[in-house]
Amino acid sequence: MRAIWLIGAAIAVIGAAPAKKLAPGEIVAAAASSEWKSIAAHDLLVIDLAPGKRIVLQLAPKFAPVHVSNIRALAKSGYWAGASVYRVQDNYVAQWGNNESEKPWPTGVDPTPPKEYQRRLKGLRVKPLGFADSYAPAAGFVDGWPIAYSPKRGWATLAHCYSTVGAGRGMEDSGSGGELYAIIGHATRHMDRNLAIVGRVIEGIDLLSSLPRGTEALGFYKEKSAFVPIASVRLASDMPAAERPSFEVMDTNSRSFAHYVRVRGHRDDDFYRVSAKGTDLCNVQVPIRRKG
Amino acid sequence: MRAIWLIGAAIAVIGAAPAKKLAPGEIVAAAASSEWKSIAAHDLLVIDLAPGKRIVLQLAPKFAPVHVSNIRALAKSGYWAGASVYRVQDNYVAQWGNNESEKPWPTGVDPTPPKEYQRRLKGLRVKPLGFADSYAPAAGFVDGWPIAYSPKRGWATLAHCYSTVGAGRGMEDSGSGGELYAIIGHATRHMDRNLAIVGRVIEGIDLLSSLPRGTEALGFYKEKSAFVPIASVRLASDMPAAERPSFEVMDTNSRSFAHYVRVRGHRDDDFYRVSAKGTDLCNVQVPIRRKG
Repeated sequence: MRAIWLIGAAIAVIGAAPAKKLAPGEIVAAAASSEWKSIAAHDLLVIDLAPGKRIVLQLAPKFAPVHVSNIRALAKSGYWAGASVYRVQDNYVAQWGNNESEKPWPTGVDPTPPKEYQRRLKGLRVKPLGFADSYAPAAGFVDGWPIAYSPKRGWATLAHCYSTVGAGRGMEDSGSGGELYAIIGHATRHMDRNLAIVGRVIEGIDLLSSLPRGTEALGFYKEKSAFVPIASVRLASDMPAAERPSFEVMDTNSRSFAHYVRVRGHRDDDFYRVSAKGTDLCNVQVPIRRKG
Repeated sequence: MRAIWLIGAAIAVIGAAPAKKLAPGEIVAAAASSEWKSIAAHDLLVIDLAPGKRIVLQLAPKFAPVHVSNIRALAKSGYWAGASVYRVQDNYVAQWGNNESEKPWPTGVDPTPPKEYQRRLKGLRVKPLGFADSYAPAAGFVDGWPIAYSPKRGWATLAHCYSTVGAGRGMEDSGSGGELYAIIGHATRHMDRNLAIVGRVIEGIDLLSSLPRGTEALGFYKEKSAFVPIASVRLASDMPAAERPSFEVMDTNSRSFAHYVRVRGHRDDDFYRVSAKGTDLCNVQVPIRRKG
């Protein structure tokens, strides 16, 4: 039988000969438990499209505190009852919320938050990527998140990578957090420092990226019947303890993560024979996994 | 009514105030007809999944001549009768062909082509990207294609961007062209110079990127019933003239393309207020459109 034709990251483990060095997945699997950090339950937003179709977001309060505070208040108040995914643009974004509705803002929501598009670099413990970035003077990782930054000018921003979630906005405002988008294609890094990134999808991004594309301009669904209903949006901290999902993210200041980044930038195994000696920030997905 | 919350490239045209400068799409729309180049019909591979579900590939004979010659012979011989998409891995690839079948090779197919993973830079007329690349000493465009290259070492390779199509392979061979993959997520540039890129999807990539993800390792579909059948694979040059699709690609050595790249790297309009002063190669999609 002709072999199944494969490409992919895990291929090295299929070969009979031992890999020259550990593959990225093997480094992650071998990391010590002390090299992982739990994600707090109030930083997990659980979006159920339908039974068995769950999307989990990790929120980023250190980078967009007011937007994240809004999102928590919106979830608690049931603001998204009747919400849907109403826009899916290929190689770009899926977007959801209440769209054109005129729902009043619940208590605790600041409808005009500041432009939380970047923050001060000072105070952040950065693990540098160590390779050139096409969009910023430097790129790296902070607390498990991919960032771009300027050591000279002192700013840092979360980066628009695959699965990044941001606040949709109009021309002058910064968005409330009521309408959210997730990146479902190639990194849209030109959006960095122009929109508020509020988190990332850590489970179920494929439920968004495999949705039918909208046929209207910018990928909006033409017919309301095409909208994908959202059954519920809850903070994990508001769910019964027994039902709460629980995740951990690799410590980006750990030794295993440094090793992982190095191997990502220097692939050299039984399948990849020519190393790029480099990688872009968004091709180094920070390992995240379910706990327990 | 609250405004629809939008993000996206075309947003500037919605604002009442005039854009500070042309948006990328406006530059493309304004390009002269002399700044476009027709794609030859024997370089177009037309894959019909089902009626109304068409994927069109542009082949890249200058970079992988033997693989492309194989693909043309395979299409002409009906080799892909009964073929299917059998692997869809999120943020990675969709892969199709005959998978484990043992079909004999048709006449004209070289089952063990050379490793057409890169070629000599010499003889190529390169338009440099002009911004840093994370994977190679330089990046740019040749004949409408995104490439990475080394001016010093004299190699050039097509780049694994969104919608790029390559030849699936095993551990030692270079693939025949019988099993193909398309990139459906963030650019997998670590694959550059390790696999043979044979072309790109220029229409219908969303038909692949929106397929359900496979649940087996590497995104293989578990059940044969999940495979997505391919109804036909034809070269446009073998189709009746009246049915042939026809495309043109922007001349990457034209003035309009230079303008387009510059604006892609320096977004500054009513929506994007902070320019990255840079862009990565794969975020500069070369404009391609239907003719007539």
